Amino acid sequence: MKDRLQQRIDTALARATRSPAPQQLAEALTYAVNPGGARIRPTVLMQVASACGDPDPQASEAAAAALELIHCASLVHDDLPCFDDADLRRGKPSLHRAYSQPIAVLAGDSLILAAFETLSDITDTRKAIALVRHLARYTGMPNGICAGQGWESEETVDLSAYHQAKTGALFIAATEMGAIAADQDPAPWQDLGAMIGEAFQVADDLRDALYDEQTLGKPAGQDVIHDRPNAVNQFGVGGAIEILQDILAGAIASIPACPGEAALAQLVRKTAEKLTPVTGDSQRVPGE
Amino acid sequence: MKDRLQQRIDTALARATRSPAPQQLAEALTYAVNPGGARIRPTVLMQVASACGDPDPQASEAAAAALELIHCASLVHDDLPCFDDADLRRGKPSLHRAYSQPIAVLAGDSLILAAFETLSDITDTRKAIALVRHLARYTGMPNGICAGQGWESEETVDLSAYHQAKTGALFIAATEMGAIAADQDPAPWQDLGAMIGEAFQVADDLRDALYDEQTLGKPAGQDVIHDRPNAVNQFGVGGAIEILQDILAGAIASIPACPGEAALAQLVRKTAEKLTPVTGDSQRVPGE
Repeated sequence: MKDRLQQRIDTALARATRSPAPQQLAEALTYAVNPGGARIRPTVLMQVASACGDPDPQASEAAAAALELIHCASLVHDDLPCFDDADLRRGKPSLHRAYSQPIAVLAGDSLILAAFETLSDITDTRKAIALVRHLARYTGMPNGICAGQGWESEETVDLSAYHQAKTGALFIAATEMGAIAADQDPAPWQDLGAMIGEAFQVADDLRDALYDEQTLGKPAGQDVIHDRPNAVNQFGVGGAIEILQDILAGAIASIPACPGEAALAQLVRKTAEKLTPVTGDSQRVPGE
Repeated sequence: MKDRLQQRIDTALARATRSPAPQQLAEALTYAVNPGGARIRPTVLMQVASACGDPDPQASEAAAAALELIHCASLVHDDLPCFDDADLRRGKPSLHRAYSQPIAVLAGDSLILAAFETLSDITDTRKAIALVRHLARYTGMPNGICAGQGWESEETVDLSAYHQAKTGALFIAATEMGAIAADQDPAPWQDLGAMIGEAFQVADDLRDALYDEQTLGKPAGQDVIHDRPNAVNQFGVGGAIEILQDILAGAIASIPACPGEAALAQLVRKTAEKLTPVTGDSQRVPGE
């Protein structure tokens, strides 16, 4: 599954960087996407499609690659000096440090566009346009990750809307787009995505609080620095781990009836184990 | 035609800014798009569709609105301090001056996504996905406006690729998407878009060199400041005006046979008159 995803991502990158592309921006696109992090969102997408029988792998692969391109675009823009001003990402200099701010803004934009061009390759146009609609909705305004980031400029924050948009949106996109790619109604898959998103947020809060920069491959303690809500500050390490386990149990219970239901539940359990930080452990964790 | 376009743009904005949108980012989207500039690109798109009989106004309106949203997104990002660092746009403070840099980055991203969500409304999915493909291609890498802007970070510039991508791309998108919206093969419409783009570039060079900031509604003399190629510096004012007339004659000659061929030629002629600056004239010119 990882290989099929990587191959589809590389096809998209090859198209975006072919001659007569300006060289720095072309290199930056590859730098932003490869080597990847844990590729959690596209993996969830492909697992949902697979649980539904994956009758159209061309569609699920394109959808997964598009989702990961969007995620990489968001990391590049979020790292910019006007947001997190991050020097590090996935253990190497953030894109605007390695290249420049202009190249970072353009790389983010170009990756968003490469995502939609990738979806336009899907042969079944009814399915392709449904995927375009969902990806645009969960990335943009008022419910997507752009909205989530936009909440950080507000004095009064709608916390539920903020979390749903900032972290939940692309996980909901993952489960719903996986279902669409497999010719299923996306609606029953929304809860699973939302709960994986919540679990991921709590796990990220734990990692941000517990791990150092070298282990994370990106700056640590950012939530305290940027005064962002964090489950560890609110409930302590033990409380946050308990919440994480509860959410994942709910996620497993929410999986709609489908041929691969049991296998998908097992995968969520495995992801839960991977996500839960081992206190005092200093091994490299799969970073974003 | 202007009213239909504005209505479709406002529908897209209403959706992107509805509750629970974060307020500043929502306001910024409207600020970036309304009141508009000359709306030249979507007007060209709708004129081409109209010349082809416009059998599917829902598609041509959505395509035109999407194209204008992309254009507005590009203006917001291009004005950022790391690019043109422009204080003014369309006679009012640039978006990052009126709001902030984070809001400007997110507004550009959100407008790109609103454009694709708008295309996903088109009922004929085969047509909708063809429009998605063309819009993504002429906006992203390696041939779109992102590539055009990316060339400005290179030490050695492929001038033809640069101009084609920077200004030509969205005009080619305009003519080709107009044809697609009207169920026509887009290929024969490429030359018209490319030539209108070239004419527009020369006209912009003339305005940049001849007009002051108040008249333009944006900073003047930017090409000299940023050391960008400019037809006036190369050929003088008279030479540039002559080139402009030649290109527009070529554009008219390139119009494919279609029911509205004569009317479209007349419109290009009128646009030519509007584009050609009157030396010494200090009236407000339709700005971008």
